[in-house]
Parts: sequence; C-alpha cells; structure tokens
Amino acid sequence: MSTYQHYLPALKWISREYRDLNSSHYKTLENPPSALEFSRIVLVSRPVLVKSSHLDANKDLWTDEYLAEKMNTRIAHPMLLYSFADAIAVGPDGAEYFVEPHVEMLTMPELLNRLNGQDGSNENTEAFYLQSQNGNLYSSEDFEGGKSPSEFDVLRQDVPADISWFSAALGRHPDAVNLWIGNSGSTTSIHSDPYENLYHVVRGEKYFTLLPPTEGWCLKERVYPHAAYIRDEVTGKLIIKPSLSDNTPTVRWSSISDPNIPGAFDEEPHRINITVRAGETLYLPAGWWHYVQQSEETTIALNWWYDIEMQGASWVMLGLFRGAGELPAMTAE
Amino acid sequence: MSTYQHYLPALKWISREYRDLNSSHYKTLENPPSALEFSRIVLVSRPVLVKSSHLDANKDLWTDEYLAEKMNTRIAHPMLLYSFADAIAVGPDGAEYFVEPHVEMLTMPELLNRLNGQDGSNENTEAFYLQSQNGNLYSSEDFEGGKSPSEFDVLRQDVPADISWFSAALGRHPDAVNLWIGNSGSTTSIHSDPYENLYHVVRGEKYFTLLPPTEGWCLKERVYPHAAYIRDEVTGKLIIKPSLSDNTPTVRWSSISDPNIPGAFDEEPHRINITVRAGETLYLPAGWWHYVQQSEETTIALNWWYDIEMQGASWVMLGLFRGAGELPAMTAE
Ligand SMILES: O=C(O)CCC(=O)C(=O)O
Ligand SMILES: O=C(O)CCC(=O)C(=O)O
Repeated sequence: MSTYQHYLPALKWISREYRDLNSSHYKTLENPPSALEFSRIVLVSRPVLVKSSHLDANKDLWTDEYLAEKMNTRIAHPMLLYSFADAIAVGPDGAEYFVEPHVEMLTMPELLNRLNGQDGSNENTEAFYLQSQNGNLYSSEDFEGGKSPSEFDVLRQDVPADISWFSAALGRHPDAVNLWIGNSGSTTSIHSDPYENLYHVVRGEKYFTLLPPTEGWCLKERVYPHAAYIRDEVTGKLIIKPSLSDNTPTVRWSSISDPNIPGAFDEEPHRINITVRAGETLYLPAGWWHYVQQSEETTIALNWWYDIEMQGASWVMLGLFRGAGELPAMTAE
Repeated sequence: MSTYQHYLPALKWISREYRDLNSSHYKTLENPPSALEFSRIVLVSRPVLVKSSHLDANKDLWTDEYLAEKMNTRIAHPMLLYSFADAIAVGPDGAEYFVEPHVEMLTMPELLNRLNGQDGSNENTEAFYLQSQNGNLYSSEDFEGGKSPSEFDVLRQDVPADISWFSAALGRHPDAVNLWIGNSGSTTSIHSDPYENLYHVVRGEKYFTLLPPTEGWCLKERVYPHAAYIRDEVTGKLIIKPSLSDNTPTVRWSSISDPNIPGAFDEEPHRINITVRAGETLYLPAGWWHYVQQSEETTIALNWWYDIEMQGASWVMLGLFRGAGELPAMTAE
C-alpha cells in the first residue's frame, strides 16, 4: 500500500475539484499589500503579482558597469550553472539522467560579458546562470548572527534582508535571499519548493508557468539516475557524466520538459502564465510547481524564501502532492 | 472509482503524517490576539483557547432573572431540541436513524425553569437545548441590511455582531451569531462544520472533544435513514418517527456516539480535549470534528460562525475529509 498509484484516486479528485473551484485568473496589486492583507493571500495560497515595490536594487542602479565594478573579484561561491541543469537530459549511453550543473568560477565582468555575447570562447553554445540558491545574499544564519562573509556581501546595501509585510504576515525572517543572473539560454525545469517565495525582477523579464500543488500527479514524475555536467578535458565541451557510485541517490523529477507544449499533459491542468517585468514582484506560494524562462537580455532577479509553516496540515498536504509513496517502475505510465 | 474506499490510502497517509507532525497540545492565550497574530493562527488551523475577552454578555449580567425578564414572551423561533438530537438513535423498528429534534415553543422563564429542574412536568427525563443555529442573534442578512426581527433581538445590546480581530483577519463579517442554552442533559454528537468558529461560554462550562479534519476517515461514517422526535399524542412522551417519504434524504453521519470511550476508534486519532469555562473563548477552526458536552448547571454560550475561504485548496481538502465519494454499503466495515 505504499506506491503512488494507491494515492491517485484521491489526488485526481483533489486536483479536479481545485480546477472547478478556482479560475486561472491571478490577482494583481499596484502596490505591496499590508501585512494583514498579505496574510489573507497566504491563506488562499494563490500567486499574486505586485506591480511596483521600491528596492534600491533596480535596473537604473544595477547596470553592468555598477555590478562589474562592485564585484570585480573572483567568486568563491559556485557561480555558473549550465543551462537546463537540474533537469532531465540524455546521457552518453542514451539513458535519461537528472543532471546537475557544471560549476565554474568567474568574475562578475566575465559573467556579464558572456551573457551579453561579448565573449566568443564557447561560440555561445553554453548557457550561463548565476543561481547558487544557497542564500548567496542573506541566509538564516544572518538572522542568527553568524554567517561567514561572501563575495556577494557588497550588494547587500541595495537589497533588504527582510520584506516587512511578508515577514510580518508569516511571523518569521527569510530562510534565504538569492541573486539570479542569466538570460534566455537558461530555463528552470518544472519543480516545486517547500518555501513561500517572493520573487522580484531587477532587470529583464521572467516568464513563470505555474501549476498549483494539487497538479503534482499530472507531472509524470519518474525516478532518474543522477549525473552531472563536466568539461571534457580534450574538447573543452560540456558532457554528461553519470554518477556511478552506488551511494548516489536517484532523483524523482517531472519528465515534462516544457509544460507549455500542447499535449504535454494527459489532462489539461490548472495553469497560470505570468510575466514578471523589471520592478515587479511575484508571490509564488509554497508548493506551487514552476517552470521559469527569462528574456533574451541579461536578466537579474532576487528572491526571498521563507520556510513554510510546519504546524497544521499544509506541510502534510504538500508532502502528498510532492510525492508520497514510491513511484511505480519507470515503464509504468 | 467513486467510493470512499478508493480514497482511503491517501486519507490514512494524511492523517498519520498529521499526527506525527502535530502534538496534541493546544495554544492558550491570556488575551485576544491581534488581527495579524490571529491570521497566523488561521493559517495553522489549530484550536486556540483565549482565557479572557470582555463581553457585556457575561455571567454576572446574564442571570436567570435578567434573561427571563428580557425575554418573557413566547418564542417564535424553534427553540427546544430534544437531547441527543441531530444524532443517531434506535427507532421503533430496531433500526438506527439520524434523528432530528422535536421543536417546542417555550418562554425563556419556562426554559430556564426546566433546565434548573424546577419543572416537574416531564420528571426531567427530557433534555432541553435552545440552539436554533440559524443566526438567532445575528445573521448575514444583518450585515446586508435586511433581517426580519426576532425575539432574540433584545439580547443584541449585550453581544457584538462582529469580533474585530476575527473579522479583520478573515476579511469578512460573520455568517451567523448563535445563542446556545442547555445543560448536561444535552450533548452534541461528533460532526464538523464548514465554518471558522469562535465559541464563547457565558455561564457554565463546555467540554469539547476535537479531532482535526484529517481524522474524518476514522469516524466510521454511515448513511442513515432520517427520523424525527415527535410527542406521542397518547402518552405525551417523545418517540422516534422514521421519515417515510421517498424524498427524505439520507444522512451521512459518524456511528461513534462518544469519541472519549476507550476503543471507540480502531486506531487512536489525534484528539484534543478542551474545557471552555465562563468568560473563555475557543477558536474552533473550520472542518475540525467536535463532540460537545456541557456542565450540569444551566450553560450559556455564544458563537460566531464565519464562512471559510472558498478560493485555494482548503475548501477542496475539507470536501475530501468530510466525505468525498459514496460510502460503501452499511454492512461493510
Ligand atoms: O528564476 C528561476 O530560474 C527559477 C526560480 C525558482 O525556481 C525559485 O525561485 O524557486
Ligand atoms: O455547543 C454545542 O453543543 C455544539 C456547538 C457546535 O457544534 C458549533 O458551534 O459548531
């Protein structure tokens, strides 16, 4: 009684009822809500786009020149991720793998040059994405008083550690504040996080495809073996190297590479497409599935991840939607 | 694929995870929370007891004498319910029924006399419970400006229509404000309501046995034929009369008559027992199962029912917990 199939009748019922009850409309606010208004939004747990919210980190301040000058040092934090990393790709043996990014250290000027196509070294066949996702700007340790310094600290003066209405509504500080710099070469494959997420675009545009937590069963998840991109020593090109150790965990991941392609789903899910433009902020509720693309130009974003409430039933329900039970063997549909 | 049994694997998984994650401890507050504090409580959706909250309707003001004087008129609203009504009982044919109350009109002095045992007419074998549950004090129509007057209106000056922190957190007015007057003769059988509930005790004590929404599958629900208590014309005693019309809907109800009896459940549920004393207020979150007993003395309570949020997934989940799918035939365990 522990495989996913046993949960499917309930999961299907829930997602269909959810679709019947909720339109695919999303709320837009001109200005940030009050803490109390936002608390009611969290209760509903549906995405909201805030059109204007003042941050020092804005497109006029955060020019290439400014960022390059501020961060003209080699970056110790892992910084560059190959496009479509943390995603499914076909390995050298023809099998599909969940592939982790190749990480390289670049200076900020090098990164920006590559994103702008002003660096011919790889004939632009590689995609670069700064997205360490470890709280590169602030992490929970900052609120507990003991974080080790990072190269990104020089940008902190432009970025608030806390978003007051968000923190007041949830009654906690963020767990991580992250900086993302990429362009249309990089896409984030569909997944969900156990975080309340406030996602702000500084430059460029981000294109979010969102599905509520209840659509997890539609995502055709499979269990994949693990691999990573490495640079071939002879050709210098990125190749996929399967992780052969017996200890490498397998990864449960959606086999849908683009949720916007007609026919991607067997049954049309509750889907919301939102463009987040420079200066705009998206509330992405915990557990919502998201597939994220970005504009061609250099696209810069910040996000605040807040731990979700563990008490009550939300965490439990997300656990079910994010995959209780063993998946059936990969051959079974 | 539409019977309850198909949903059981998921329902069991959810309730067990919920038990693992949440202790049976409940929060106690000395004073009412702020709207923002309360919004975080609603998000967690677990019961909270507020020790003191000032209302004009308190045990010093609402003496028998005061109530009798205020309401010394015959009551047009249905007023008296036979004990254990809206509950399962054995009918004259030996079969079990869901039995609705017998309703009688009494004056307030008559009711209070009977509750105090100062009326020998029925040798106290009957139980009396004023609990019309139709918003006898205030209803949503009051907020829309058009309620027809009721006998209970004379008590309104002592009872606020809105509880400010509750209304501000939910962003709405109550749907119904009810008055309850009974004693230990009356027990409310275990059920759940699709309402956020604020329950305040004016006199006496109420004993709540609470189970989270996720325990619905443990309640051994059955589908019962409908009946009502009527007064036998010859003996004057209350008897159960099955509703024979083909149009009478059957009622899905728990077959557990007392959730506190050891062995009532096949598997020990997440259970919380809370005594609410005069002057105290219980936040009873939407969808929580409750079984309610009261003290021997005349016990008076007020409650504010607020509609739950229909957007998002909460309503959907309550639907599942409160009984998606047809129950299997009554013989099946
Ligand atoms: O911006 C992206 O590429 C992905 C964002 C994301 O996955 C997140 O904020 O959780
Ligand atoms: O007080 C009672 O007897 C029952 C209360 C109840 O069921 C409710 O407030 O929903």
